[in-house]
Amino acid sequence: MPTITAFESSPDRGKGHARDMRVRWAFEEVGLAYDVRLVSFAAMKQPAHRALHPFGQIPTYEDGDLALFESGAIVLHIAERHDGLLPRDADARARAIAWMFAALSTMEPPIVELTMAMIFERDKSWYAERLPGLQDRVRVRLGELSHHIGDADWLDGAFSAGDLMMVTVLRRLHTSGLLDEYPEIAAYVARGEARSAFRRAFDAQLAVFTAASRS
Amino acid sequence: MPTITAFESSPDRGKGHARDMRVRWAFEEVGLAYDVRLVSFAAMKQPAHRALHPFGQIPTYEDGDLALFESGAIVLHIAERHDGLLPRDADARARAIAWMFAALSTMEPPIVELTMAMIFERDKSWYAERLPGLQDRVRVRLGELSHHIGDADWLDGAFSAGDLMMVTVLRRLHTSGLLDEYPEIAAYVARGEARSAFRRAFDAQLAVFTAASRS
Repeated sequence: MPTITAFESSPDRGKGHARDMRVRWAFEEVGLAYDVRLVSFAAMKQPAHRALHPFGQIPTYEDGDLALFESGAIVLHIAERHDGLLPRDADARARAIAWMFAALSTMEPPIVELTMAMIFERDKSWYAERLPGLQDRVRVRLGELSHHIGDADWLDGAFSAGDLMMVTVLRRLHTSGLLDEYPEIAAYVARGEARSAFRRAFDAQLAVFTAASRS
Repeated sequence: MPTITAFESSPDRGKGHARDMRVRWAFEEVGLAYDVRLVSFAAMKQPAHRALHPFGQIPTYEDGDLALFESGAIVLHIAERHDGLLPRDADARARAIAWMFAALSTMEPPIVELTMAMIFERDKSWYAERLPGLQDRVRVRLGELSHHIGDADWLDGAFSAGDLMMVTVLRRLHTSGLLDEYPEIAAYVARGEARSAFRRAFDAQLAVFTAASRS
């Protein structure tokens, strides 16, 4: 059974924004059991964890002799080896993988910059002047994505690993208010969150946070 | 023969930071001929181009009925179908792909934020106060990467698509001065740039810019 790592106590307080959520969701979609090893912030920066993850983060993935890091790579690894996350047609499969990269390289960076500024720059003198530009960078991408999705359920045909990554990236915007401006995107995110595999993954990561905050 | 798109006139003035460089380099490493269709900034935002790339960017990739976008996805597509960019051993192959994601998801975002701020926020009142934090975010990653590389030539065994992506991401730091602080990283980037496939790709994209600036 593969083992992943996750935060001992997630800084998002169980909202499912930590990147183990993507891997948990992928496991649930393909119906594969997995173990979770919890790590503290201190342990993540120690040599034992850095041997698995050179940048001292979570998640990692271990299965026999193979150790991987990067949530995108782990989800792709799972998706390539089990049915449920990638189409069988070669061209459709390549396009689904392109959407995984789009989620991580095109959508996620401006979203992370915005949400990080909303947390860490809120007290800075420049916050009010800088915020609209950060929001507009995200709006441009949301507008383009909304135009692409239109009235379709998913990004390209059936639900795929591309949707899984995209929904987890877009969920970070829940507290920003920006999703409300794009009803097609809000509905798309809600469709992802309504999947039973998502719910199981979400509940599993929330249970870790709840247990940690009780102890 | 596959066709990619590239800037008609690259904003980096031929320094090879536009993302077609990665795809050109991948083609050269595996010895595959390719066509390039140049697009203007205006044409990139039109429906015809957005049908290939929903976010109106370059590069795109077309081969028969298949159209792809996202440089990471295109490089992976090429690497999966031709020898030279991914190890044959399944575990080593998965690790090389993990390094592709690490280049794009962990290294590139703070590097792009820093280099964008150096261009677009230089005249802002907050630039001097904000710059050190942006530099330090990059330094943390460079330190971790430097520790990982040590005295090895490449990230994980032989040169792979992971190195190709990482070198193209790190090259953006040439004007920042930060590479000078990490001799192992500077040497790693130089090893990538010294590959004959890199040189051919670099010269090809430079020739486009040189021709455009003459006309």
